[in-house]
Amino acid sequence: MSLLKGIEGPSDLKKLSPEQFPDLCQEIRDQIIAVISNVGGHLASNLGVVELTVALHYLLNTPEDLIVWDTSNQTYAHKLLTGRREQFHTIRQFGGISGFCKREESVYDTFNAGHAGTGVSAAVGFVEAREQQKQSHKVVCVVGDGALTSGLTLEGLQQAGDSRKDLLVILNDNQMSISKNVGAISAYLNRTITGELGVRLQEKANRLLETIPRIGGQVKKVAGRAQSLAKGLVSPGMLFEELGFRYVGPLDGHTFEYLLPTLENVLKLEGPTLLHVLTKKGLGYKPAMNDPVWFHASSPFDLDTGKPKSKSARLSYSSVAVDTLIRLAEEDRRIVTITAAMCEGTGLNAFEKVFPDRLYDVGIAEQHAVTFAAGMSARGMRPVIPIYSTFLQRAYDQVIHDVATQNLPVTFCIDRGGLVAQDGTTHHGVFDFAYLRHMPNMVIMAPKDENELQHMVKSCISYDRPAAVRYPRGSGLGVELDQVPEALPLGKGELLRQGTDVALVVIGATVHQAVTAAERLGQEGISVAVINARFVKPLDGELLGTVAKQVKCLLTVEEGSAMGGFGSAVLEFLSGEGLLVNLQAKCVGLPDWFIEQGPQDMLREKYGLTADGIYQQAKQLFARISVGPAVT
Amino acid sequence: MSLLKGIEGPSDLKKLSPEQFPDLCQEIRDQIIAVISNVGGHLASNLGVVELTVALHYLLNTPEDLIVWDTSNQTYAHKLLTGRREQFHTIRQFGGISGFCKREESVYDTFNAGHAGTGVSAAVGFVEAREQQKQSHKVVCVVGDGALTSGLTLEGLQQAGDSRKDLLVILNDNQMSISKNVGAISAYLNRTITGELGVRLQEKANRLLETIPRIGGQVKKVAGRAQSLAKGLVSPGMLFEELGFRYVGPLDGHTFEYLLPTLENVLKLEGPTLLHVLTKKGLGYKPAMNDPVWFHASSPFDLDTGKPKSKSARLSYSSVAVDTLIRLAEEDRRIVTITAAMCEGTGLNAFEKVFPDRLYDVGIAEQHAVTFAAGMSARGMRPVIPIYSTFLQRAYDQVIHDVATQNLPVTFCIDRGGLVAQDGTTHHGVFDFAYLRHMPNMVIMAPKDENELQHMVKSCISYDRPAAVRYPRGSGLGVELDQVPEALPLGKGELLRQGTDVALVVIGATVHQAVTAAERLGQEGISVAVINARFVKPLDGELLGTVAKQVKCLLTVEEGSAMGGFGSAVLEFLSGEGLLVNLQAKCVGLPDWFIEQGPQDMLREKYGLTADGIYQQAKQLFARISVGPAVT
Repeated sequence: MSLLKGIEGPSDLKKLSPEQFPDLCQEIRDQIIAVISNVGGHLASNLGVVELTVALHYLLNTPEDLIVWDTSNQTYAHKLLTGRREQFHTIRQFGGISGFCKREESVYDTFNAGHAGTGVSAAVGFVEAREQQKQSHKVVCVVGDGALTSGLTLEGLQQAGDSRKDLLVILNDNQMSISKNVGAISAYLNRTITGELGVRLQEKANRLLETIPRIGGQVKKVAGRAQSLAKGLVSPGMLFEELGFRYVGPLDGHTFEYLLPTLENVLKLEGPTLLHVLTKKGLGYKPAMNDPVWFHASSPFDLDTGKPKSKSARLSYSSVAVDTLIRLAEEDRRIVTITAAMCEGTGLNAFEKVFPDRLYDVGIAEQHAVTFAAGMSARGMRPVIPIYSTFLQRAYDQVIHDVATQNLPVTFCIDRGGLVAQDGTTHHGVFDFAYLRHMPNMVIMAPKDENELQHMVKSCISYDRPAAVRYPRGSGLGVELDQVPEALPLGKGELLRQGTDVALVVIGATVHQAVTAAERLGQEGISVAVINARFVKPLDGELLGTVAKQVKCLLTVEEGSAMGGFGSAVLEFLSGEGLLVNLQAKCVGLPDWFIEQGPQDMLREKYGLTADGIYQQAKQLFARISVGPAVT
Repeated sequence: MSLLKGIEGPSDLKKLSPEQFPDLCQEIRDQIIAVISNVGGHLASNLGVVELTVALHYLLNTPEDLIVWDTSNQTYAHKLLTGRREQFHTIRQFGGISGFCKREESVYDTFNAGHAGTGVSAAVGFVEAREQQKQSHKVVCVVGDGALTSGLTLEGLQQAGDSRKDLLVILNDNQMSISKNVGAISAYLNRTITGELGVRLQEKANRLLETIPRIGGQVKKVAGRAQSLAKGLVSPGMLFEELGFRYVGPLDGHTFEYLLPTLENVLKLEGPTLLHVLTKKGLGYKPAMNDPVWFHASSPFDLDTGKPKSKSARLSYSSVAVDTLIRLAEEDRRIVTITAAMCEGTGLNAFEKVFPDRLYDVGIAEQHAVTFAAGMSARGMRPVIPIYSTFLQRAYDQVIHDVATQNLPVTFCIDRGGLVAQDGTTHHGVFDFAYLRHMPNMVIMAPKDENELQHMVKSCISYDRPAAVRYPRGSGLGVELDQVPEALPLGKGELLRQGTDVALVVIGATVHQAVTAAERLGQEGISVAVINARFVKPLDGELLGTVAKQVKCLLTVEEGSAMGGFGSAVLEFLSGEGLLVNLQAKCVGLPDWFIEQGPQDMLREKYGLTADGIYQQAKQLFARISVGPAVT
């Protein structure tokens, strides 16, 4: 008899006896593992918070009481318990439920998140709204220890600690953000939890790990010893005390016997309280426990072995970028790399293997990563920051204020540019061209394939100024790589095809789709030029001008926001030169709304960024000229 | 005999005897006060760090040893001591030296800054560059206590504390950032310095304050008791110790007797060290000591009285915005305001007087300010964030990720939009249209005058979605204010003038300049339409389309970056509608480089944003049509 199937919401959970919770947790884990092995997702962190999630929904009066999940990629159990069990198999799929919290999806999802470190700030907002509205519900924020490296979290803790108002922050400490944690606070936590009490709790946790995984839960007695337990666990936790928090912990996050009474008591405490809970990433699935880094955000995998179901034979853009960096770093002692807790995602672990002393992992601290790079650069180094497009958004001001104003040679390898698939709205890297291109001194490139990427990485470093190369998530086109990466001439595009009717001016990997579209149009008697722009900035004005004068209409194409993006730059240039007169111009890109989750190819098709989409749009534009009111 | 005049660089300083330093400091103060009373500037903080600056350049081997000044608006003494005495009177003026550090200006300026909180990160960059290059110079970073509210500083401290490498961070603690400090770390510091030792040092500092100001320095003996003194001053400083720093302090920052030997010893310590120095903002000039908030960044003032030399009779945009907020807040309990340590600059102190419980000062924590607002908004409040344009850059990702993706009704009152004058490069608010307009769900407005501003503030709140109104630094046009602020129809511009030759499509206070230009062109027989666009987003497509069809050429005008800005949005719209064919279009805005410091009107003239500039550019564009190759 399934316990989980009887739970349509937290009120059903409250009907269970806590003795049944281990069984319930086992069912939740089974469900998560089954679905994620099939569709991919954030497995390890979700397996680590099952007991905590059950305990919170059991003790709190949600949705009146508010739980804020920082980053919110650890909310699979939360979703299963709050009315989304039936849809859970659709998670992270096109049209399905999100892998993160979504207010649009459920009243139990209090705040959308996808980037780490926003939880405490949002929770402080909930607290102050409650005070303004003279309400009395509880606000609980669950943050991972990784989020403590984020300045945003520390800013939020400062206000919370200073305000003295009721707020419970649960520090879900699994000693990892994505990869191993870094930074002084992490070191501090490690000292704390390796103290006597910590060791005792960890031993208990370790024993637990041996009994629970996939063997089936065992009923445990939940004693009513809350008071004494909670008190017994209060340790100095000076760092948080100094920030104005009452500190309780560390507490074994997998044993209801401790978790429930402690949490119950802690929820009664007044003022800002930090409950330090120790959990184990991947608990309940051995492959995930053994390799929590891969299982942080995994692709579909074989349930028995934990091995990825499929692996592309083609090189990924990330790996080509990093391999190029390794080659260049061998010859140039000035090159160092910096990551904001994304050593694996960006492929930098390969760099670290060769140059362990020349990689800096600064934690989830994008702002610092960029200013730190600017500092190194000002002293003659050549720092390179491989970073996801949407995470670089965090350091927008630092790129302007610390890098661009000083014209410092910092290289940004912007990974996950364009559509990213299942992570959806918060992770689609569609704004980068638009947020970078108005920065003076900045060079912005995007390669048509992985071979051009290696040349662009080399180019970035050789230009001796702020430079960015932006490339997609996933595999390259499978093209052959040149033997040696060579710097490209600054601001020069590539004319791939001559034509007199239509010009396709394209940036990034969509270039190949455009060539296919052009060939098809050519077969229909429409003469199409194709420019691989290579540079968003500086634009190749000479080439653009020449081609613009030869054709009747011009389409720009980019996998990015059409507003303010590459196409917009082309329009600015052409209008400045007076070349838009007599030219039908159109920008093809992503529309002015947040793009949903879904497979990259499906989204590309939906938004007209395939060969067929480009073909159709070019044809329509050309038809406007041919049959529309005569303009010449 | 002037001591200061003999100092061309730190080597000359080293020739002096420390007994002469108080006299030297008096000369430095006199010089700073004389110049800043004339040109305006950051007086109070600069008067507070004179002794510290002298001590640093005396003990360090600059420029080989590196001093990083956080924010760097406290570097006037530093500039006077490092070869810029002769140019000092040009500070903050067009063509003169900067009020901040500039690497282009001096080898002693190691890192440019203008926004708070970058110093530690840059210094950590210097440290790691030194280690990579196997050098051994010292790196010292001077940060104000206000910068400790900034997440960026805390991110930097985490890496520094974790790395264990040699770095001296000097915490210049004057208990203020700009206004009174907030946040848990500030509260922690206050507890520290009100402890026994702190009180003793403060008493000494207080006595000092009575003897030094404008009476002339007095020779003090500098005893060689360094060792014992330094040791005696080591106190727990747990917060910093937990972050991996050795903590020394608090230390009286105005008495060389303590400052020199302690600093000398601290510089010998290995690993990350934090020296906590107590200073007094405005020391040496009574009006600045009495009102350090006004004297944080003052306009020119009367030397004897400390009163501002001139005050505009017209209302400032800031005050109109805040007065409107007060009126609206009286009727709408949901309205609260949030500031990132800029209560005075944004005019919010007026709001605080009326609604002390509805203003939140979160410290120099722009990221948190925005996510905190999103949290309140998600719970039914209507938070408003008055913030300078360039400081909002810090929260770019939070505006997207926390506000826009959830379509939350948060209002941004973007102050200091456009050119800001003397603060120069890091403070010109020229990127805001470009960095906001690609965000889905966002409304962006800019008023033609202070009367329209009040309606736009009302509009922002009434639209129930993310909305920004952007207005200039300084006084309005002196127009009469309507009795009641009324919401404007969303996305509707205003046709101020009909015309058939040229359309001027203008956003913001430049509208009035455009009207004047249009009248002058009209007198010459050129028929000019003027659109007050009001909205950067959503654009008034109907009005734009109608006018575009009636004219032969179209100029967009904005006081902001032309790249990706308002004009770029107009081009996108017109091209999407096929309306650019047969239309000469040009975007007038700021060019693709960082704008220098200088009076607003001078810069406007230089960049063609005056009535005359618009007149000239419109005429040129029109001439292109009239005499150029026939296009119709």
